[in-house]
Amino acid sequence: MIICVIGLGLLGGSFALGLKAGNTPVTILGVDNNPQHAKQALERGIADEVLPLEEAVSKAELVVLATPVNAILQQLPAVLDILPEGATLIDFGSTKQQLCDAVAAHPKRDQFVATHPIAGTEYSGPEAAFAALLEGKTMIICEKEKSRPASLAMVEKLCRSLHMPLRYMPAAEHDLHFAYVSHLSHISSFALGLTVLDKEKNEKNIFDMAGSGFSSTVRLAKSSPQMWGPIFSQNRENVSEALAGYIAQLQQFKEAIDARDEEQTKALMAKANDIRKILG
Amino acid sequence: MIICVIGLGLLGGSFALGLKAGNTPVTILGVDNNPQHAKQALERGIADEVLPLEEAVSKAELVVLATPVNAILQQLPAVLDILPEGATLIDFGSTKQQLCDAVAAHPKRDQFVATHPIAGTEYSGPEAAFAALLEGKTMIICEKEKSRPASLAMVEKLCRSLHMPLRYMPAAEHDLHFAYVSHLSHISSFALGLTVLDKEKNEKNIFDMAGSGFSSTVRLAKSSPQMWGPIFSQNRENVSEALAGYIAQLQQFKEAIDARDEEQTKALMAKANDIRKILG
Repeated sequence: MIICVIGLGLLGGSFALGLKAGNTPVTILGVDNNPQHAKQALERGIADEVLPLEEAVSKAELVVLATPVNAILQQLPAVLDILPEGATLIDFGSTKQQLCDAVAAHPKRDQFVATHPIAGTEYSGPEAAFAALLEGKTMIICEKEKSRPASLAMVEKLCRSLHMPLRYMPAAEHDLHFAYVSHLSHISSFALGLTVLDKEKNEKNIFDMAGSGFSSTVRLAKSSPQMWGPIFSQNRENVSEALAGYIAQLQQFKEAIDARDEEQTKALMAKANDIRKILG
Repeated sequence: MIICVIGLGLLGGSFALGLKAGNTPVTILGVDNNPQHAKQALERGIADEVLPLEEAVSKAELVVLATPVNAILQQLPAVLDILPEGATLIDFGSTKQQLCDAVAAHPKRDQFVATHPIAGTEYSGPEAAFAALLEGKTMIICEKEKSRPASLAMVEKLCRSLHMPLRYMPAAEHDLHFAYVSHLSHISSFALGLTVLDKEKNEKNIFDMAGSGFSSTVRLAKSSPQMWGPIFSQNRENVSEALAGYIAQLQQFKEAIDARDEEQTKALMAKANDIRKILG
């Protein structure tokens, strides 16, 4: 199977490596506007060839858009325009509504399957990619009724070959959920990093004193601004609502602490402990 | 060496197991007002014997207070009252100022060494304890000039046997730093858990969609309210200041997102990326 991966970073690269480690023979035609990334992708065996976008798309049975969501928004209609009949297009964007809207009336809409693999790390670029990243992770598929059955079935089969459980939902629902379970986590972590860096001018101090708790809550603050800026923009209303809710919860803590109301801080924490039921 | 560990939970239990795994023969006399924990500590080989507090303290060369900080505040002067001449008392509290203040004028103050091991997990109780928890973790020692040289040297030697790097600082400085690098992380995580649980009534949804990013930022929301409530109370002013700073950072993000100012959200994230220099 000939697959064109546009964006040879963490997700696109890991998808390519994961498929190459599987049983179906695949040829990966890579596209990346960063020559350094293109070179690394060839060196690491992510791509078999790096080609200009038009050429790679014209030869592909499957095209994967694995660029930041602002780029996907531009590329999605343009790639669909030149997508060969019979080929399928998917994207790995962390937002779905604006992307789906951008091609809602496109004559080739049914060749597109809107997907979001729930996988990632705080690192980016082809050097961060690894074959097991997508293994066993959930793949969300949005608006499946707008994709032609053959394209949908092919994508589902590929996901199953990577042992990715499938979940289906409307794009609006996807964006609302992910504002809470992903986008908010990233902002909480970026803001934590800023707060601590702002206070602790002496970085050696932070390093020496940071326990595993701090490391784990601040880990996402290492994430790429180029990737996350456009996600927050495209999911602006949901992210703003989630942030407002989060700030309100923090204010509840602050008020209870300021009022020396330890019973209230304990009650809030006991309620938050319910997360154990979910995370085990 | 005969060591009395008061509080056979995660930290006290792990300290005992870590020492037992080392080269110096130790006898652990356990004290716990929870009979279930006392039983588990004996079964797991954390304590060689479980005794009433007075009896255990009277036989010990080293006494460790590893209870929640509200209990330490009560026990510290009381245990110092009955501590044998020649014995040393340490505590594992996550706050230091109020604890040090409580025994500042105690006639036996010099037998006390104020310590804080920078180690923990989101779990608690003897069943969560494991020998390697303290291995290689930093031990903070506060007000070392108020401890007699023999007691300080003994504690330092024990820490070195667990390969714990030592850092020394005033109690007030400790409490300020830890409001930022530890206590704030916990509140950020508890509040994140509350926000998501509040929105997502369907727990199955959260479970299916939560990626590793969410798990890592919300992990500390599983922590014990009984342990953390008193920490926030004893470090009230610093925690309140840290929380105010954190809320202000989050509001900066919210304002930039609401204003569709993507350059500003990217600038904030790029600044937060400096945390890479510290966490590697």
